[in-house]
Amino acid sequence: MAEGILGKTTIWRNARLATLDPAREGLGEIDHGAVIARDGKILFAGAEADLPATAAADTIDCEGRWITPGLIDCHTHLVHAGNRAHEFELRLNGATYEEVARAGGGIVSSVRSLRAASEADLVSQTLPRLDALMAEGVTTVEVKSGYGLDLENEAKSLKAARALAGVRPVSVRTTFLGAHALPPEANGDKDGYIAKVADEMLPAIHAAGLADAVDGFCEGIAFSPDQIARVFDRARALGMPVKLHADQLSDLDGAALAARYGALSADHLEYTSDAGAAAMANAGTVAVILPGAYYFIRETKKPPIESFRRHGVAMAIATDNNPGTSPLTSLLLTMNMSATLFHMTVEECIAGVTRNAARALSLQTETGTLEPGKWADLAIWDIERPAELVYRMGFNPLWKRVWHGQ
Amino acid sequence: MAEGILGKTTIWRNARLATLDPAREGLGEIDHGAVIARDGKILFAGAEADLPATAAADTIDCEGRWITPGLIDCHTHLVHAGNRAHEFELRLNGATYEEVARAGGGIVSSVRSLRAASEADLVSQTLPRLDALMAEGVTTVEVKSGYGLDLENEAKSLKAARALAGVRPVSVRTTFLGAHALPPEANGDKDGYIAKVADEMLPAIHAAGLADAVDGFCEGIAFSPDQIARVFDRARALGMPVKLHADQLSDLDGAALAARYGALSADHLEYTSDAGAAAMANAGTVAVILPGAYYFIRETKKPPIESFRRHGVAMAIATDNNPGTSPLTSLLLTMNMSATLFHMTVEECIAGVTRNAARALSLQTETGTLEPGKWADLAIWDIERPAELVYRMGFNPLWKRVWHGQ
Repeated sequence: MAEGILGKTTIWRNARLATLDPAREGLGEIDHGAVIARDGKILFAGAEADLPATAAADTIDCEGRWITPGLIDCHTHLVHAGNRAHEFELRLNGATYEEVARAGGGIVSSVRSLRAASEADLVSQTLPRLDALMAEGVTTVEVKSGYGLDLENEAKSLKAARALAGVRPVSVRTTFLGAHALPPEANGDKDGYIAKVADEMLPAIHAAGLADAVDGFCEGIAFSPDQIARVFDRARALGMPVKLHADQLSDLDGAALAARYGALSADHLEYTSDAGAAAMANAGTVAVILPGAYYFIRETKKPPIESFRRHGVAMAIATDNNPGTSPLTSLLLTMNMSATLFHMTVEECIAGVTRNAARALSLQTETGTLEPGKWADLAIWDIERPAELVYRMGFNPLWKRVWHGQ
Repeated sequence: MAEGILGKTTIWRNARLATLDPAREGLGEIDHGAVIARDGKILFAGAEADLPATAAADTIDCEGRWITPGLIDCHTHLVHAGNRAHEFELRLNGATYEEVARAGGGIVSSVRSLRAASEADLVSQTLPRLDALMAEGVTTVEVKSGYGLDLENEAKSLKAARALAGVRPVSVRTTFLGAHALPPEANGDKDGYIAKVADEMLPAIHAAGLADAVDGFCEGIAFSPDQIARVFDRARALGMPVKLHADQLSDLDGAALAARYGALSADHLEYTSDAGAAAMANAGTVAVILPGAYYFIRETKKPPIESFRRHGVAMAIATDNNPGTSPLTSLLLTMNMSATLFHMTVEECIAGVTRNAARALSLQTETGTLEPGKWADLAIWDIERPAELVYRMGFNPLWKRVWHGQ
């Protein structure tokens, strides 16, 4: 926390609030509201009529604008090197996956680019993407490794992710995704590589304090449930929370696997069964919906939103920003995609990038709602009603963004 | 043209050009290129090695960045009042169209809002949308009327559209769309309303010099081919070019109707037959592809891109910005949608918002390519290859935008 925050009190008044307070209905709306921040934290968020007397405060007149919690992008691969626009173009011109691979495309190309980049390169290449997210009110972003695929390069990615918080006013949560893909030097030996992830890389990453959670990609083209379990067992032994890329392209019971390990979240979930959703509900695992990848790879199987609703699974929404399957840097557009493609409601979309996204990162006591004691992370919008945040495409109505009170 | 332009010469050098010059292959790329503008027009666009000696010029080093023609959004309903976010929310919550209509939704609500707004209101409500387009390099925008539905309010819309060019450095083309929907006061009498459009409104709009073209909505829920022909006959008599909203929701042979009148463009076209595409090719009618509406209303029938290719129909791409079916203000995202949803190639997408969009507005001698004699309307991009303009979602790599040389 910047020292300048201490002792500073700010009041945002004449606002409409979407508090996302779970004790209130829907978005927890307050028509004539105000927020007070002191020392970077929320001291008060409620009706202007109940505003406590506060000495020596800066006061900002919001002129009737809406305040929501700062947005949280809870699933990204934001730190990567280069892009895969050429591969995208080849595919549109009719190239097969094999031809793309021969032309140097695919995930291996992202691994090659990342390994060739320094930590400083990674930071500077990532900043424009982070700035795009922040310009739309994002105050917390999760960043995964997973293009390094060896200890040195996975550590470099996570250090670059942590370094972002030093150059921008934003909270960063890092996730170790060594079990993302098989590196070329493993020569097809998935079990051997997973042993290295679980027994060497993960303990070292943990010891260096570089990751807040552990993730894996459970899929035919990636790792099996047993291989993921091997990594998760180690994470459990180290006391680290887990997350999982589950059931994106096929149903491998990834949701149930995640639930068995009490995962913070299971993500993607297009092929998740009703039993998987029930297991997630029991475990309190958040469903992270990623419509950008669904759209970009032209998937046709939609995640079982109705099943998540019925079982009471909390749903978050994220960009999944990555160079191969979701070069998306707009959480507003992600909300529109969730509504348009998956029929999620306005309330579900907004909760998905605030309250529930915080839960997916185990940050629910720190951010994601406008409640006293949490960080004063705010997004203030030039809109007449919250639905406008979901309805528009390619338009940014942000008026002001506040991180930790400023 | 602003007086300041006269006598001014500017050179953009050390650039990569996508000239879109039809005499060159593909995007008409020039690796080490430069552009010279004098008096707002392009004097030279070519290889830096061939740069003519030019006295007293400002020189801008583009540091290897890409220059494309300024983008052209050739189909919008940008001038409107209010938004329909509430209707969007009601639908997501399961409301039927009838319930939405009872709650005051639907196109009638946009007509009511527009009629209640002054010309100045319309300009100020439209500017944020125009600014969003311009921020992504748009230098020309088409704007339709069609929410006034009586002479006074149609004229007001078109005047507001023309007024935009007075407050922003952008070219505006206006289109009279009286035949957009039936106004409530017509009490279901479509023929009577069309007679008024053709015999009263259109001649008055033409006499006032408010419209550059005439458009109609040919569809079961709007007007029949015979009713549209009635309007087009009048347009022809007045010497005004026509365009048509054709075959969006069903095949009424709208494409062939447009072709029969030598329309500048036929737009939407999801249900256009192969014969319709052939007729358009013969007439030189541009196909304007509008993926935003397709996506937003969850249409599943795609426009016959392959048929347009086979017949050699020029394809343009536009936002269709409107409050009911396409609240979209990003031409970059529109390109991505065209590639992702309709498999259009990178070249087709970029030609679709430059050279072919100019043709759809009969501006092909003035803008849309980097060729001597055209307006110096440029977009300069922080990208490594043009495919990046299509590949990303929600990211704006514009470095500088130039309209009429500045």
